Amino acid sequence: MMNQNGILVHSIGARWTLPPVFHYKYYPQHLRSSTKRSLRVVKAAMSNTAGQVIKCKAAVSWEAGKPLVIEEVEVAPPQANEVRIKILFTSLCHTDVYFWEAKGQKPAFPRIFGHEAAGVVESVGEGVTDLKPGDTVLPVFTGECKECRHCKSEESNMCDLLRINTDRTVMLSDGKSRFIAKGKPIHHFLGTSTFSEYTVAHIGSVAKIDPAAPLDKVCVLSCGISTGLGAAINVAKPKKGSSVAVFGLGAVGLAAAEGARISGAARIIGVDMNPSRFEQAKKFGVTEFVNPKDHDKPVQEVIAEMTDGGVDRSIECTGSIAAMISAFECVHDGWGVAVLVGVPNRDDSFKTHPMNLLNERTLKGTFFGNFKPRTDLPRLVEKYVNKELDLQLEKFITHEVSFSDINKAFDYMLKGEGLRCIIRMGA
Amino acid sequence: MMNQNGILVHSIGARWTLPPVFHYKYYPQHLRSSTKRSLRVVKAAMSNTAGQVIKCKAAVSWEAGKPLVIEEVEVAPPQANEVRIKILFTSLCHTDVYFWEAKGQKPAFPRIFGHEAAGVVESVGEGVTDLKPGDTVLPVFTGECKECRHCKSEESNMCDLLRINTDRTVMLSDGKSRFIAKGKPIHHFLGTSTFSEYTVAHIGSVAKIDPAAPLDKVCVLSCGISTGLGAAINVAKPKKGSSVAVFGLGAVGLAAAEGARISGAARIIGVDMNPSRFEQAKKFGVTEFVNPKDHDKPVQEVIAEMTDGGVDRSIECTGSIAAMISAFECVHDGWGVAVLVGVPNRDDSFKTHPMNLLNERTLKGTFFGNFKPRTDLPRLVEKYVNKELDLQLEKFITHEVSFSDINKAFDYMLKGEGLRCIIRMGA
Repeated sequence: MMNQNGILVHSIGARWTLPPVFHYKYYPQHLRSSTKRSLRVVKAAMSNTAGQVIKCKAAVSWEAGKPLVIEEVEVAPPQANEVRIKILFTSLCHTDVYFWEAKGQKPAFPRIFGHEAAGVVESVGEGVTDLKPGDTVLPVFTGECKECRHCKSEESNMCDLLRINTDRTVMLSDGKSRFIAKGKPIHHFLGTSTFSEYTVAHIGSVAKIDPAAPLDKVCVLSCGISTGLGAAINVAKPKKGSSVAVFGLGAVGLAAAEGARISGAARIIGVDMNPSRFEQAKKFGVTEFVNPKDHDKPVQEVIAEMTDGGVDRSIECTGSIAAMISAFECVHDGWGVAVLVGVPNRDDSFKTHPMNLLNERTLKGTFFGNFKPRTDLPRLVEKYVNKELDLQLEKFITHEVSFSDINKAFDYMLKGEGLRCIIRMGA
Repeated sequence: MMNQNGILVHSIGARWTLPPVFHYKYYPQHLRSSTKRSLRVVKAAMSNTAGQVIKCKAAVSWEAGKPLVIEEVEVAPPQANEVRIKILFTSLCHTDVYFWEAKGQKPAFPRIFGHEAAGVVESVGEGVTDLKPGDTVLPVFTGECKECRHCKSEESNMCDLLRINTDRTVMLSDGKSRFIAKGKPIHHFLGTSTFSEYTVAHIGSVAKIDPAAPLDKVCVLSCGISTGLGAAINVAKPKKGSSVAVFGLGAVGLAAAEGARISGAARIIGVDMNPSRFEQAKKFGVTEFVNPKDHDKPVQEVIAEMTDGGVDRSIECTGSIAAMISAFECVHDGWGVAVLVGVPNRDDSFKTHPMNLLNERTLKGTFFGNFKPRTDLPRLVEKYVNKELDLQLEKFITHEVSFSDINKAFDYMLKGEGLRCIIRMGA
């Protein structure tokens, strides 16, 4: 039978006497179910591989910008404060492509990319009590240790220990990789490396979620969609009936629009240089569109004219410094709040006249939509499952490919086609 | 007898049959009392001058930078939506001196300056129902019409109708002055012109306060002290036990420190180029001092080192663009909030790397400490009177002069001596 995630669920039977190096072939591709029975089965299967090296498939990036190669990799068991996760669904985010292209950063190859995913805990390392085999989880590119000043602050999600670190290519505990392919250690990416049937992550980077959640949809909450959504609902917090400008109508911007729509914003003004995005954006609640290229004055002036002085909230999701400045300067004085989401270039400088601030505008940035991965993502998933939040994740999923076709997902993104491509593992 | 404001209170008697042009000499200097009886007396006296021109003393500034001259002026009766106020105490603020010097702005002379004051309503114009003769009031340099989008917004105090306008030199209703001296109309200043025994103000710029308040102290709440205090308690909102940096230890900065102290901040770091201010600042709760001149690195780095990464809140009260940038960059990532108060130069540009924002810092500006003049000032005064707020206004009052010595107040400020000089009218 198929469960809601489209995964075959069946009895595992007697095959589970495994060799010390466990081979992916022996491992069922169907370790996810919303039924208690199948979770018991998953857990039983998991426990058989605990402490062993698992051989499985991973999409290895051997060289910057070159197609990934599906390789057999060995995945070492999790160490203290780590878990090994069987990835069931992963999706491709711009950050993967950005580091795969490696045009602006120190190259680190071979590497296993991937950081938006959902899966099931296969085994846990020493001292792990919060997670157990069979738990349904989202690995997350940034963590929550629950011990540092940031984790203890109600306001921050920028964990001192596990904050995103794009330069780190090994596990925190021992400075080593858990992956070997063709006899070589393979670099990790963002502590997640989800383009592998199995991966190892620090427990602080793993959110345990409702097992009833459809994993082929909630996997997109691991990064981009939560980033945009949280920028709206956690940070900008538009009031019912208010106006919101969203700069950039890619997946993150549309998630911000979705958050504004959910919050009850009456006007959502989408700003993008690419008018082909406008039609799609309507589905996400965007009510009006501005293409800066259509105007001979700064877009902040255009928006101020449209809104009798400025929007109530703006959310910048492009990373362009010009868009950041426009997003700030287009909010109304007295109460306007601008939220920056997009990651700028190293040499950018944000400039504005200080009177724009003194006239009671607020400028703030957010990281991962201010969600604390372990505390807030489970709640978000639960609200989605229980329909407490009218979050329509399916709108973001425009493509789906099998793991063996992962390079197609890269092609879609490079061509600017669609929003999220779900990569179905083990298929 | 003397009331708490040091004003003689006595019966007014039969003198109050007044000529059409009412002369100040006939008017008692003692129109303030905390007793019901004296308020009745004041009211009775007031009503006798209603609708008539009042002759009284005002300190007229005939020429930029030249000593004020105490002149006899005629003060016209209030028109629709205006009140005429007998000023009892006024104090001198930097903004008065700045426009009196008129180095950077369009000169408007002759002018009656003054915008920090307390007094009693003498008469009201047509249609005025919220205020009546005898009401104890603070005239305020910025207003609250209660009708515009700003006034209806919970977040803004930047009234569309009555927001500060330093260029306006006449009354809103008819574009005319209410003052005549030596046969010439005299320019108003900030809608208040409190360096006159009587002045006329729009009702939207007048806060009705508790008659039990000591007017020789609460008069400083009309501008500078509320600005700094509100920046702390209304905008920065430091938590108990937190750290706060205050840039600039003049009256506004010390009011911000006072607000941080009242909020329970554990560390208040005062930043000033003038070390002579440090001793005085201790009285306002400042616990540590940084003089940027003592360091060969940016002050934001010095503060970050002192505080393990940055302060929780910072408040900038100098108007220097360098201080604004330092104030922003010295707050902790994840939760830091910087509040800008000081007014910058016209050509200044606020510059920072956008990553400072994306790392979850917040930058905001405030105007008049986000107090709505008519809604919030009466509550603030009430809390002060009832000792609900441990606000020690007397610390700000370092000098007192009689009205005839008003130029001494300018001298003190020009020499940087003291914080606030109270000018006692009618003395």
